[in-house]
Amino acid sequence: MTDIGFIGLGLMGKPMAKRLLMAGHRLVVYNRHQNRVEELAGLGAQLAASPREVAERSEVVITMLPDSSDVKEVILGHNGVAEGMKRDCLVIDCSTISPLIEVEIAQHLQNNHVESLDAPVTGGTTGAESGTLTFFVGGKADVYKRCFPLFKAMGKEVFHMGGNGMGSYAKLCNQICVGLNLLGTCEALMLARRAGLDPDKTIEALSTGAANSWQLANFGPKMVRRDFKPGFKIEHLEKDMRLVDEVCEQLTLPSFGASLVRELLKYAKNAGLSENGTPALFVALERLANR
Amino acid sequence: MTDIGFIGLGLMGKPMAKRLLMAGHRLVVYNRHQNRVEELAGLGAQLAASPREVAERSEVVITMLPDSSDVKEVILGHNGVAEGMKRDCLVIDCSTISPLIEVEIAQHLQNNHVESLDAPVTGGTTGAESGTLTFFVGGKADVYKRCFPLFKAMGKEVFHMGGNGMGSYAKLCNQICVGLNLLGTCEALMLARRAGLDPDKTIEALSTGAANSWQLANFGPKMVRRDFKPGFKIEHLEKDMRLVDEVCEQLTLPSFGASLVRELLKYAKNAGLSENGTPALFVALERLANR
Repeated sequence: MTDIGFIGLGLMGKPMAKRLLMAGHRLVVYNRHQNRVEELAGLGAQLAASPREVAERSEVVITMLPDSSDVKEVILGHNGVAEGMKRDCLVIDCSTISPLIEVEIAQHLQNNHVESLDAPVTGGTTGAESGTLTFFVGGKADVYKRCFPLFKAMGKEVFHMGGNGMGSYAKLCNQICVGLNLLGTCEALMLARRAGLDPDKTIEALSTGAANSWQLANFGPKMVRRDFKPGFKIEHLEKDMRLVDEVCEQLTLPSFGASLVRELLKYAKNAGLSENGTPALFVALERLANR
Repeated sequence: MTDIGFIGLGLMGKPMAKRLLMAGHRLVVYNRHQNRVEELAGLGAQLAASPREVAERSEVVITMLPDSSDVKEVILGHNGVAEGMKRDCLVIDCSTISPLIEVEIAQHLQNNHVESLDAPVTGGTTGAESGTLTFFVGGKADVYKRCFPLFKAMGKEVFHMGGNGMGSYAKLCNQICVGLNLLGTCEALMLARRAGLDPDKTIEALSTGAANSWQLANFGPKMVRRDFKPGFKIEHLEKDMRLVDEVCEQLTLPSFGASLVRELLKYAKNAGLSENGTPALFVALERLANR
């Protein structure tokens, strides 16, 4: 039983925090929007007034926030986690942000004798609710071992990918495949429909061989049924593909496919589809087809 | 037991023809390059001097050829299959070519009281050898039913996708996914290596969730081990993506992703990688990265 602080109770954070409560841990929570903490308070979580206060009352602080700037502010900013952390306590950042920012944060915390892990996840809200998330973890091996039971309380598969930042790099590799497989699924089903093929039969046939992907099998049927509720939102995948672009730029790597996917997701965002699940990329391509 | 003619004994055609022989059918074969027929002759296949002669001696003629022009010439050209076919015999074209050409050929044959199916496959040489190919079949339902046992002798999964041409459309949908999932696998593994991640561990971790694909699971390890022998060649996937481009143009559909994949495959071809297996797209991207 650990005293855990949890900051960021959005679509992903809230179900992850719930699973920690269910596993018997004590929880102190903070969220910018107070209304999101009420359900957890009802389940026994304590409330804190700032990230600093969360840190003061916890052995391990977990953050699950939208973007690099949010994580930096919550951990290193005024009244932030770093100001409240006791020596030898731990920070786990489950957000998907820049690996370089993760390294910067880890170094800052180490100067204060606090170790940290970057541990972004894949599996979406369904995975968070059912406890089937995959964690990509970066950080020291002994810190990883100490936190392993917490990962297992929130998810199913846990991979230690290397030192600080390496979890985040693995997550960006993951998102490259997610983005391109999603685009492939969209374009295949657009052609299927225009050609007059039965879309369900097409998904079934394509799933038997070299064309198969998680995106096709899981999101193909959502496109066919026009089920675009999130899950994982267009705006979040767009943000992840921006991170891929930035990191590839820094590493002087080409990212032909990932950049294209980002451009199409930007178009989808600007077309008002931000809040839809990622299968709504199909809708963006429909609009581009009908011009 | 059927008298089957088989034309086109390349990397795919030869193992498919062998499986028909093994299933007990009589086989008459023709190939432009005579040296390719010898092994089949040794197994009991009869040789013919032209596609026309193959047709004269068969109830069902199967073709497995590289491109639209080859199929048109072999079936409709001088000394071609159409000249030799008897009434109520059947043609099955397993080549991956334009759906519009398939429809044109089908109509021409129907005028001579010959029915045909387009039945392109997925599964590569491994699938052809092990009899695990998937067939996407277009044509009349009763013709499909008559030919079903032949498909089962050569493959595992058989899908009747609709009328003539629909098998070919389904195959192009398949190739859109194949191409984009392949590109995603390449870009993810390029980033993994540049970031210093263990590539095998990255494949293992990504395979557990939303990033998973047949291409990642099967060709990711080939990229890591630099195993680029064919299998399915760069030049053949480039040809298929050209067909996708052409068909999307005809249907006024955008093909952002598929067109990009085609451009990168063209680059790979021009860089001397034509004869390599498709995982060699990784090598093409390495060269683009090192400029």
